[in-house]
Amino acid sequence: MPRLVMKFGGTSVANIERIRNVALHVKREVDAGYDVAVVVSAMAGKTNELVGWCKEASPNYDNREYDSIVASGEQVTAGLLALTLQNMGINARSWLGWQIPVMTSDDHGSARISAIDGTGILAGFSERKEVAVVAGFQGIHQPTNRITTLGRGGSDTSAVGLAAAIKAERCDIYTDVDGVYTTDPRIVSKASRLDRVSFEEMLEMASLGAKVLQVRSVELAMLYKVPTYVRSSFDDPANPQLGTLICNEEDIVEHQVVTGIAYSKDEAQITLRQVADKPGIAASIFVPLSEANINVDMIIQVVSADTKTTDMTFTVPSADFERAKAVLMKHRDAIEFKDVQGTTDVVKISAIGIGMRSHAGVAAKAFKALAEKGINIRAITTSEIKFSLLIDAPYTELAVRTLHSLYGLDKE
Amino acid sequence: MPRLVMKFGGTSVANIERIRNVALHVKREVDAGYDVAVVVSAMAGKTNELVGWCKEASPNYDNREYDSIVASGEQVTAGLLALTLQNMGINARSWLGWQIPVMTSDDHGSARISAIDGTGILAGFSERKEVAVVAGFQGIHQPTNRITTLGRGGSDTSAVGLAAAIKAERCDIYTDVDGVYTTDPRIVSKASRLDRVSFEEMLEMASLGAKVLQVRSVELAMLYKVPTYVRSSFDDPANPQLGTLICNEEDIVEHQVVTGIAYSKDEAQITLRQVADKPGIAASIFVPLSEANINVDMIIQVVSADTKTTDMTFTVPSADFERAKAVLMKHRDAIEFKDVQGTTDVVKISAIGIGMRSHAGVAAKAFKALAEKGINIRAITTSEIKFSLLIDAPYTELAVRTLHSLYGLDKE
Repeated sequence: MPRLVMKFGGTSVANIERIRNVALHVKREVDAGYDVAVVVSAMAGKTNELVGWCKEASPNYDNREYDSIVASGEQVTAGLLALTLQNMGINARSWLGWQIPVMTSDDHGSARISAIDGTGILAGFSERKEVAVVAGFQGIHQPTNRITTLGRGGSDTSAVGLAAAIKAERCDIYTDVDGVYTTDPRIVSKASRLDRVSFEEMLEMASLGAKVLQVRSVELAMLYKVPTYVRSSFDDPANPQLGTLICNEEDIVEHQVVTGIAYSKDEAQITLRQVADKPGIAASIFVPLSEANINVDMIIQVVSADTKTTDMTFTVPSADFERAKAVLMKHRDAIEFKDVQGTTDVVKISAIGIGMRSHAGVAAKAFKALAEKGINIRAITTSEIKFSLLIDAPYTELAVRTLHSLYGLDKE
Repeated sequence: MPRLVMKFGGTSVANIERIRNVALHVKREVDAGYDVAVVVSAMAGKTNELVGWCKEASPNYDNREYDSIVASGEQVTAGLLALTLQNMGINARSWLGWQIPVMTSDDHGSARISAIDGTGILAGFSERKEVAVVAGFQGIHQPTNRITTLGRGGSDTSAVGLAAAIKAERCDIYTDVDGVYTTDPRIVSKASRLDRVSFEEMLEMASLGAKVLQVRSVELAMLYKVPTYVRSSFDDPANPQLGTLICNEEDIVEHQVVTGIAYSKDEAQITLRQVADKPGIAASIFVPLSEANINVDMIIQVVSADTKTTDMTFTVPSADFERAKAVLMKHRDAIEFKDVQGTTDVVKISAIGIGMRSHAGVAAKAFKALAEKGINIRAITTSEIKFSLLIDAPYTELAVRTLHSLYGLDKE
């Protein structure tokens, strides 16, 4: 029998009525002949409640205890969905991370999956025609025998990892949108749902701000070539609508040059003024930031009027903005700069498309179009299948619409 | 270092503020030089919320899923208390049933502990001076590898079992009363706290209606001779008050004839009228009830006016009243009776005391005193250290006060 992994997030399991709706989706696939494993998140709001208690108990909480506390949310949902399925006459049982087991690293709070043992779940399929209801987001580390969690959006990663482990035909991610769009439909009304998108493109989109899937889950899907289908959990279970299939490049017949436009507000720009222009300058700046676990993204070096110094501009996640400035000030003597400036009022706009590989001058068209709209480009980065532009935040919507139209993505 | 097990129930850990109070009790014992294991229940109300969801998901829920869902409550509290202790500068970690492990039978929903491995907790004591915060009420069954729960009040049983496993000097049960009383102080204002009570007496009291401890936990305490101290969780942690020590008979210097008066409203009386008086009559009635898992307690057989039939009266738990009548009706042809009657408007009053072993006529005094108050006795059972009387419910308070006074238990 073909196997299917289905994943439902917190809003889809917010109460028993919603869980019943999820069970109907599962029943449809069981009736269609699939052996099904369902991965569930905690009921909407529960994780935040639990995290709130952790902070109240200990502001600098021990991540090992945090993991054990927070993982209880998925434990409850998994049991409740199993009961609901049983009540519909479908064999089902819940599986917690440590029962499967889902082995992970010991990075509590953001652990990485190292191995998933599908034996028990597969035995349930073959021996008892039993739906496996899996608590997402959680695993176990050995030999400590302690519960770990995978970090934000970890249930997507659980689902894709499980699909790889049990060799599922597909991993269906049910979410609050009906697929992956050419860009954010809240900004561009002419945005449209993509029928298919390649793993590589989806990975870039997720990394560059599209929130529909977590980066880690797309990485896993790409690594294990798990066809992953993003679809809506609000569909009528009896009449499901289409979503977006994330798949191999070869399985997509026609490629646009640009597939989607993403944007990320989670950026901050830092400029070091009049840095002494000497060998090793980049290392003196970026090694301390890296040691402080701060990711530097775009980097631009501009020679100053006097030729003995240079200005260094780069971006960091806005959450790390203050910390990054503090790290730089601490190393001021070693780096030798005059001043540190910065702003979080910037946005990174990206265009992604596998077609860029075979088309030249794609980014150049964007520079021209944005300039015509009076949008200043602060920094540029490119890779084989995307380019990103750092612009002033107030121009976000205008820039996204301009590029969406420029690359022929507007609907109708 | 001497070891101590402390147990706190749901109202003691209802929120972070209350959990902080619990942590102060723990800190006091750590400062006094104890290696401490703390057993906690779910936050007040949480278990009922989870059970409610289970019933909503599936009216006849699978107890295996129920156990996994409900055990999450203790999981949260254990983590939060560990965090709170850490925040006070005390080494602490949480332990879930499956991590210890607490091995149990596979009677999901009311599993029995078969073994507790104290190795990990003891290593935490000796290697890291680490308080063990243990999720009560839960265990694991092997080889199924599934979470079990111990049933109502199971956290007391977890605590006593753990105390036996790690050879603790004492098991302190913190509860919402400050000890075991000669009778219910809400009925008898002259009731007083007992300084000490023997395991045997406590077991009878718990079995006969005193709600301070679960029967199973007292059985375990008696079996493993774990001195168990019932005390108030509402005490000022800096200035704890006295409670009641449950201990060996030999450790109690002076014995009253009667130590306490208990009552249970959880009784129903069933009378079968005109049962054919033939050999095997008792078996024909009580075997079907036993097979339906209904416990029959007091039994009285009265010969009817005509000598060919007899009336059989017995008591069952009031929760099983309707079911018991249904079972009897189903076997009516085999049993041969004319009519089944019954009432739940009865109460079982019991007097308990080790001193009864060496004193004759203790119960007889009660019959006389109750008769003088116009209280009709419907049934009587006795054992070595207690006697029980079934009376009409409206006389409960009067009967309890009469016996409390009769046996010299009134304060002052």
